[in-house]
Amino acid sequence: MKVPVGFSLAGINCGIKRKGFDLGLICSCDFSDAVAFFTQNANPSYSVLVSKKNFSNPIKAVLVNSGNANCFSHKNGLQDTEEICSNLAKLLNVEEKNILIASTGIIGKRLPKEKIIKNLPKLIKNLGENIDDFVSSIMTTDTFKKIAYKKIKFKNGTVNILGFAKGAGMIFPNMATMLSFILTDIDIDTNILKEISKDIIDESFNSINVDACTSTNDTVFILKSNKIKIESDEVEIFKDNLKELCISLAKMIVKDAEGATKFIEIQIKGALTKKEAELAAKSISSSMLFKSAIYGENPNFGRIISALGQVNIPLEEEKIEIKCSSLKKKDIKLTIDLKRGNSSYRVYTCDLTPKYIKINADYS
Amino acid sequence: MKVPVGFSLAGINCGIKRKGFDLGLICSCDFSDAVAFFTQNANPSYSVLVSKKNFSNPIKAVLVNSGNANCFSHKNGLQDTEEICSNLAKLLNVEEKNILIASTGIIGKRLPKEKIIKNLPKLIKNLGENIDDFVSSIMTTDTFKKIAYKKIKFKNGTVNILGFAKGAGMIFPNMATMLSFILTDIDIDTNILKEISKDIIDESFNSINVDACTSTNDTVFILKSNKIKIESDEVEIFKDNLKELCISLAKMIVKDAEGATKFIEIQIKGALTKKEAELAAKSISSSMLFKSAIYGENPNFGRIISALGQVNIPLEEEKIEIKCSSLKKKDIKLTIDLKRGNSSYRVYTCDLTPKYIKINADYS
Repeated sequence: MKVPVGFSLAGINCGIKRKGFDLGLICSCDFSDAVAFFTQNANPSYSVLVSKKNFSNPIKAVLVNSGNANCFSHKNGLQDTEEICSNLAKLLNVEEKNILIASTGIIGKRLPKEKIIKNLPKLIKNLGENIDDFVSSIMTTDTFKKIAYKKIKFKNGTVNILGFAKGAGMIFPNMATMLSFILTDIDIDTNILKEISKDIIDESFNSINVDACTSTNDTVFILKSNKIKIESDEVEIFKDNLKELCISLAKMIVKDAEGATKFIEIQIKGALTKKEAELAAKSISSSMLFKSAIYGENPNFGRIISALGQVNIPLEEEKIEIKCSSLKKKDIKLTIDLKRGNSSYRVYTCDLTPKYIKINADYS
Repeated sequence: MKVPVGFSLAGINCGIKRKGFDLGLICSCDFSDAVAFFTQNANPSYSVLVSKKNFSNPIKAVLVNSGNANCFSHKNGLQDTEEICSNLAKLLNVEEKNILIASTGIIGKRLPKEKIIKNLPKLIKNLGENIDDFVSSIMTTDTFKKIAYKKIKFKNGTVNILGFAKGAGMIFPNMATMLSFILTDIDIDTNILKEISKDIIDESFNSINVDACTSTNDTVFILKSNKIKIESDEVEIFKDNLKELCISLAKMIVKDAEGATKFIEIQIKGALTKKEAELAAKSISSSMLFKSAIYGENPNFGRIISALGQVNIPLEEEKIEIKCSSLKKKDIKLTIDLKRGNSSYRVYTCDLTPKYIKINADYS
């Protein structure tokens, strides 16, 4: 595993959390191009607002903090965030518009901007091949580090893709409190990257559901440093690799979901439309009753019928087919053929457990 | 408390459940008129299908079973249900179209029609003022009997309203696994009763949310035996009493929700539209994160902001007002003023607890 050419990483503690790293930095040697995906929550964090404004510019650095969502916290929240970015920009000899920012943690508390600004020089000084420091700085209730790596040989050289993610609650399709940062040294047209990543994000980060709650902070950044130019007939190979990497990070988020004991892949088949297949997958994976049954290794599949009826999908009893691998295992595959048409959709989800409640009863 | 004039009740064990009553009967001396409300789930039970077909006719009896949802159970399910009703009709010297039926319990198992049919004569023989037997026969995971009673003096005599309900999981606005039977000896135009009960159901049984799951079996029947004629200027008094009775039954369902330790009344104010207020109330009351926080007596109100953003309600940080009574108490009142307009909505909900998961992990 290596950091793609053109990037350096750092992670430190700046005092947002009492212990553990809470401030991370991705820095481009020159400038990178970014493709970005944000939460669809109507009350996004200030970090999301600032990054939305900046991501189309050449990107010099991405600042990430954990322990504070920087959302709905203070009337000066937006100004604070811009001030942090502008301080980082000055230290890196660029403009505020070249900086991206992402945050994760509790909603409603003011981000301690002085602590962050004071520690920026130290953060910059620590920049290097610090994969471990960086991934540590983005974790909240995550119990393991979520890193994925791909090395692909093309005609003009080797391309690296290094991806990071954090979970682990408030995860619903269209992202939720998850952050992911994907770095690559490929040189590919930004519009092509945008186009291929849209589909990839839909099949990975937008196909996971922990608790049906959409966070205010979800962010995926894909940054490319444009070092290795590939041929147009090689785009598919890159796409396949990027997709595998994103799906593997997405699965890690679900596997590390708060309190989860089971990982469930739900494959909906035979839906009338793609939209119906998605609705079916999301209704089942959001059902507290279904998720509790899986926790109990209890094949109470009437709850699947009920969840499908709840989103207005009528079924024919003699037709629908439900296949399920052993509920005793940690990894479960559930295939539901609605026998209504030809569309399909897949979602990754987990069980609902007393530990999830315990974590979220105490978290603040 | 008394059974309204013109009705008799019974409850027995017929063998669907190993112990406890599981078969109940409401019988009209003559015929009653019914107003009915059913689940909006697209895969309703056979009992719902048969009652939907029959409820506009004069009603002789309502048969209720617990322990089996009579839903998605067998290709002959509808025929079985009609056979049960037709057997009951014969014993009561009426037609099948004069019978209503409701079921609650597990989805996907065939209703044991022989056990029911065999026990119908015994059930009829037991008919009387058996309030306790009847309410016992409709319970599943309910921990207490849900009965409400009103006695109202009108110019022409005293009107009785006696209401029963059962919960206690799969409860989402638009009803869920809840059944309610309301009997009254009032004589009032059926269309007027239909009109006033629509609003009442919306403000009571359609304003409760336990776990955001809509059941296949929800049913409310309001039956009137037409004994006491009221004057047109007395309709409002009857309406107020019926409303109080329905709200009190609805609250009982939430208070007895599976595993719940807290009862929460959420009042949304200042929404742009009634629809927005409803959406806000339902999103917050469905949030596993919010409900876990309440269980932990944890004022993590960022989760309210997040739940509102999830349903596309953008908020102004300086304006929104959240007021909450003590989280330490068993009854909690939460008022959220969105400061966007003048519409409001109220929902009754509860916390999410490890015990809810335990009950639903094991239930089958």
